[in-house]
Amino acid sequence: MKIITIGREYGSGGRTIGKLVAQKLGVPYYDRELVDEAAKHSGLAVEAIEENDQIVTRSFLYDLAIGTSYGYVNQTGASLDLNTQVFLAQRDVILKFAETPCVIVGRCADYILRDRSDVLRVFIYADKKSRVKRIVEEYGEDPSKAEKLMTQSDKRRARHYEEFTDSIWGARRNYDMLLNSGALGIEKTADVICAFAKDN
Amino acid sequence: MKIITIGREYGSGGRTIGKLVAQKLGVPYYDRELVDEAAKHSGLAVEAIEENDQIVTRSFLYDLAIGTSYGYVNQTGASLDLNTQVFLAQRDVILKFAETPCVIVGRCADYILRDRSDVLRVFIYADKKSRVKRIVEEYGEDPSKAEKLMTQSDKRRARHYEEFTDSIWGARRNYDMLLNSGALGIEKTADVICAFAKDN
Repeated sequence: MKIITIGREYGSGGRTIGKLVAQKLGVPYYDRELVDEAAKHSGLAVEAIEENDQIVTRSFLYDLAIGTSYGYVNQTGASLDLNTQVFLAQRDVILKFAETPCVIVGRCADYILRDRSDVLRVFIYADKKSRVKRIVEEYGEDPSKAEKLMTQSDKRRARHYEEFTDSIWGARRNYDMLLNSGALGIEKTADVICAFAKDN
Repeated sequence: MKIITIGREYGSGGRTIGKLVAQKLGVPYYDRELVDEAAKHSGLAVEAIEENDQIVTRSFLYDLAIGTSYGYVNQTGASLDLNTQVFLAQRDVILKFAETPCVIVGRCADYILRDRSDVLRVFIYADKKSRVKRIVEEYGEDPSKAEKLMTQSDKRRARHYEEFTDSIWGARRNYDMLLNSGALGIEKTADVICAFAKDN
């Protein structure tokens, strides 16, 4: 497998697992870097992309105010909303990165690369208790807010995925393996991915 | 991991994968044998168990006709329907088998053993095309009937799982890993399971 895409529930350690896998396989790891790279290539402002990444569904007025100031147009020549522009810019970057072996976390990469046979599409999830523990201990969030943050982040990821794909975030059909990092542990989850990726 | 439970979509090769894993780990494999074992211990007729295994939802009249002729009673002393009697008999056998390392395919084993930390709970799935191919080539079914058979079998398994557990068949929360045998291949799927089970 040349490319490993990782989708993940918030607090499941997907980012850490992605970094471990990339280290073990000696390939680049892409995550937030994607956004910056997308910005550089598309001419979209980094701030707009970051804001868009956080707030997928924005008001019509905001779209209207900002909509036509960027460069992407669709096939009919009509200007696209900012959401779609950002998605297309990220897709272009993912396609470029995927020309050489790498690990890509998030950003609908599994969907964007769905027709390639050299891509291992992984989804990481975990039980609530493990995730809340990680959110507090690793991400440094307030314990009283951890569960709400988890629910909100998952909802945002699901909405973003479902907005730009014809499928459901986390549904097994979209992936080659779904691994429970709460049960398997972070290190072992990375090992399982590497064991398969190395052999194929 | 001492015990590996495998849930699986019809035609995904879960049974073959289970046998391979058991061979590689040198532990017993249980599947249809469970039914016979359950029958021997419970006094339920093998035919009744096999029929029940195929047709989970039967008519009230059939239950009425056959209901009280078997031995299981619930805590209040009332006789249980045949479905429940068979499930309880199978559960007893699974609990007994799980006293020593083994692979158990189907029969809600993941649910029955959900509170044990030495159990690796696996679910095997695959794309429709791979499954239809396997149903025709490996199981020898008529190509024109393969897809219908697949849908019916999955529905039956889902119904059986959901009748006796408080959860949904194939939902990721119930498992430690979900593996797409259509993408990974039968041998490699077994290898991934063994790699993890051996180390833990």
